[in-house]
Amino acid sequence: MTSNDAAALITLHPEAQAQLFSDARTANSFTDEPVTDEQLRAIYELAKFPPTAANTQPLRILFVRPGEGRERLVRHMSEGNQAKTGSAPMVAVLAADADFHEFIPKVFPIRPEMRDHFAGDPEGREQMARFNAALQIGYFLLAVRAAGLAAGPMGGFDAAGVDKEFFADRNWKSLLVVNIGKPGENAWFDRLPRLDYDEVVTHV
Amino acid sequence: MTSNDAAALITLHPEAQAQLFSDARTANSFTDEPVTDEQLRAIYELAKFPPTAANTQPLRILFVRPGEGRERLVRHMSEGNQAKTGSAPMVAVLAADADFHEFIPKVFPIRPEMRDHFAGDPEGREQMARFNAALQIGYFLLAVRAAGLAAGPMGGFDAAGVDKEFFADRNWKSLLVVNIGKPGENAWFDRLPRLDYDEVVTHV
Repeated sequence: MTSNDAAALITLHPEAQAQLFSDARTANSFTDEPVTDEQLRAIYELAKFPPTAANTQPLRILFVRPGEGRERLVRHMSEGNQAKTGSAPMVAVLAADADFHEFIPKVFPIRPEMRDHFAGDPEGREQMARFNAALQIGYFLLAVRAAGLAAGPMGGFDAAGVDKEFFADRNWKSLLVVNIGKPGENAWFDRLPRLDYDEVVTHV
Repeated sequence: MTSNDAAALITLHPEAQAQLFSDARTANSFTDEPVTDEQLRAIYELAKFPPTAANTQPLRILFVRPGEGRERLVRHMSEGNQAKTGSAPMVAVLAADADFHEFIPKVFPIRPEMRDHFAGDPEGREQMARFNAALQIGYFLLAVRAAGLAAGPMGGFDAAGVDKEFFADRNWKSLLVVNIGKPGENAWFDRLPRLDYDEVVTHV
């Protein structure tokens, strides 16, 4: 079966497939066009819906506009990521809230006592927060693309340094930094190979 | 700003927004209609595209059809998940390959020597595999919806037991079990509340 045959089994509109998955690319440069507060809110209003374990939604977002805050962030980026983080119109620090359990009475009202269960298990809580926030980062990156913007996710930064710099008063653990904006000049590298189905999938 | 205003800033087609994000729901029952091998392949051919760190793509998938393999899986599910896992037309065990570095010469040919760097760091490798596979699970769940199917992700299972049962000969770490199919009778619970933008987002 070719990729074209496979696409026919996808009921999602072909333009939507291209916008979120098959044509979308990680951008490495951006134009100066600002990303508005309304766009950020629209991205969240879409990304908030897909599922998390017990509806816990541990993803937290620090949006870093150009200016003094951006300079504080850039210092914690690895050298190869500093120039693009410094120049992107918007940067998001995506983090897991290891104290997500405080919201359980709101988000999982059918079992509010889960808050107290988690209160006694900080290690299990952090592990659960990291996994479910990572799922939500997947949703968030596609929601950025749904807003007609490009995302540039970067794992190369000092997470402990970022947490100390921005989250000293809370229990957020930074996971990924994402540049956001309209793609600029020479924004794209060549697409790297994807693994074949038979390298990834097995059956019983 | 209302959710309707926010939606206007999303360039993704409204039907696609609904299919992947705002109307889609976690299914708790399924019809008997089989999920075909061609559908599974089409889902992967979409889910493979969005980004992972250094293009590592550590997500691995075990598809479990009804039959003897399914019975072996159900034994490791928590009690509340056994009936629906037993009856879903298709079940996916989603796992992180902690030996993803073996594929680096293929997926990151610009720095094939990264394979040897990772070979000496099994702990960092497993952490990176778990995070990036979780991102890919986010993409996978939306790709299931893109195929016109419903997903029912479940964290309630014995991961060590599943790994021993199915992955004894490889370094895969199971992260999530997902029922897949057409939604059945009474498939939906009421939607649980989502966190507000101001509960999740902060700015500098």
